[in-house]
Amino acid sequence: MDFFEVVAKRHSYRGGFKDLKPKDVDLIEIVEAGLKAPSGKNAQTTEFVIIDDSAIISQIRAMPAANKAIQQAGAYIVCIIDKNPEAIYEGFSFQLEDCAAAVENMLLAVTALGYASVWVDGWLRVEGRADKIAKLIHLPENKKIQIILPIGIPAEIMGVPRKKPFAERAWFNSFKS
Amino acid sequence: MDFFEVVAKRHSYRGGFKDLKPKDVDLIEIVEAGLKAPSGKNAQTTEFVIIDDSAIISQIRAMPAANKAIQQAGAYIVCIIDKNPEAIYEGFSFQLEDCAAAVENMLLAVTALGYASVWVDGWLRVEGRADKIAKLIHLPENKKIQIILPIGIPAEIMGVPRKKPFAERAWFNSFKS
Repeated sequence: MDFFEVVAKRHSYRGGFKDLKPKDVDLIEIVEAGLKAPSGKNAQTTEFVIIDDSAIISQIRAMPAANKAIQQAGAYIVCIIDKNPEAIYEGFSFQLEDCAAAVENMLLAVTALGYASVWVDGWLRVEGRADKIAKLIHLPENKKIQIILPIGIPAEIMGVPRKKPFAERAWFNSFKS
Repeated sequence: MDFFEVVAKRHSYRGGFKDLKPKDVDLIEIVEAGLKAPSGKNAQTTEFVIIDDSAIISQIRAMPAANKAIQQAGAYIVCIIDKNPEAIYEGFSFQLEDCAAAVENMLLAVTALGYASVWVDGWLRVEGRADKIAKLIHLPENKKIQIILPIGIPAEIMGVPRKKPFAERAWFNSFKS
């Protein structure tokens, strides 16, 4: 699919999914797109776990769902960072940005391959959900799940939400000129 | 260009640029791709300034350069966030992630349109460079430049740097299984 078509089609899908498992080969291609995202100093410290085991999936589905997508996904991809990221440039670390860039590549790949997903972040941070899922995938103590993507074949047609136009968020040479 | 081809071709380009200004229509299309990136609660709080004014460009070029790309760019795009982002979900704000997702969309669009760029972040944070550039574009006190992208037509052929393979950064169902 053409790049700009993928960008235009990608949207946060919170609806239900068809009862079909995403194919392993597609899940791998989605993660491969994430691996190709840039990272601070090309350190490539973010890591990924694809969850398609039905026992783990049922435990995630048993949590209070943020939306139908989280509840009905046939697979999840989690992006993992260090709890205390190493400084890699002048005292700064960039794992949060690295993780976000990788997730955006993955969301676009999800769209290009005919699946749908939604960036789930805040939901993980309450009621210890990130920690609970971390245990299910045997994450060591020094790592944390930053973002989870529920992935499936969309069962509903949801509109792409309205985005503010260029003139409200972007300018040439001078802010709000 | 096909989406997966764009993802494979995108790389952090730090070489020199041809002495040609990126076209306005292309710069706008790049920013439009950034505007279409997801944002926490679809708040769309990140903002962008395209810098192509030669007086501002010379002042950026006069700073100690991180690389040839920063020194020779025919235009820059900056991504702007709030210094104190509002909490939009359970006390959390997501502007850093929103900015990173938008920048990744823009870097892919840069590639799709035949330009090159590099994500510049840490460089802005030292010697007050983000503040100095903020003044040049009349940014209010409550906003800051988080990321700057130097944009141009690459004058050198640089290889895509090696990325670690899937098996070193991703697994199914169990971390490092």
